Amino acid sequence: MKEHKLELTLLFDYYGDLLTEKQRTCFDLYYNQDMSLSEIAQEAGISRQGVHDSLTRARVTMQNLEATTGAMERDRRCREALVRIRAAAEPLCQNANPKVVRLAREILAAADTLEG
Amino acid sequence: MKEHKLELTLLFDYYGDLLTEKQRTCFDLYYNQDMSLSEIAQEAGISRQGVHDSLTRARVTMQNLEATTGAMERDRRCREALVRIRAAAEPLCQNANPKVVRLAREILAAADTLEG
Repeated sequence: MKEHKLELTLLFDYYGDLLTEKQRTCFDLYYNQDMSLSEIAQEAGISRQGVHDSLTRARVTMQNLEATTGAMERDRRCREALVRIRAAAEPLCQNANPKVVRLAREILAAADTLEG
Repeated sequence: MKEHKLELTLLFDYYGDLLTEKQRTCFDLYYNQDMSLSEIAQEAGISRQGVHDSLTRARVTMQNLEATTGAMERDRRCREALVRIRAAAEPLCQNANPKVVRLAREILAAADTLEG
């Protein structure tokens, strides 16, 4: 069940607030705290099957959100593009031509609006 | 009920696929086809109150999705930033210095990965 752990924890960071509290708790204990289904069942006072079902529903919900909106993947591409844009614009800020410097600073300022 | 029509139709383009079919139908007929609650009730074979409730649930669901992920607003900012980045990088492609041209093309290539 933990074979897609990295992908799922990324989805959880992005969409976790849209899960139910029970799904969030089960997901956190299982994937982030690395507890077993039985340990979580004991901790949460529900059945082992209940924990399993909560985890399944959490996964399906988050994968459905990402499949529909593609928002997490777009954010990832955005961060990658920003790294490339900054890496190319920064040397231009050292150029002897003031017009080049002005345009390079405008590019960096626009890139800054996409941070955070 | 139509006072936030523009914002809601933008949300619908973004998150509509995450609504139930009934919510999607009601939303489309009300906001996009400009039908009245009573006309939709007749068309969909449900009560006027049922149409009203579907529209309310659709709105709450989509506003909750956006409040939690902020994905639509980030996309909007991304498009704005790309316009600024392109407007500044394109004149740099005409520069006499080949190094400036190379870096400007790299910026435009990175920006292209964010399209669509």
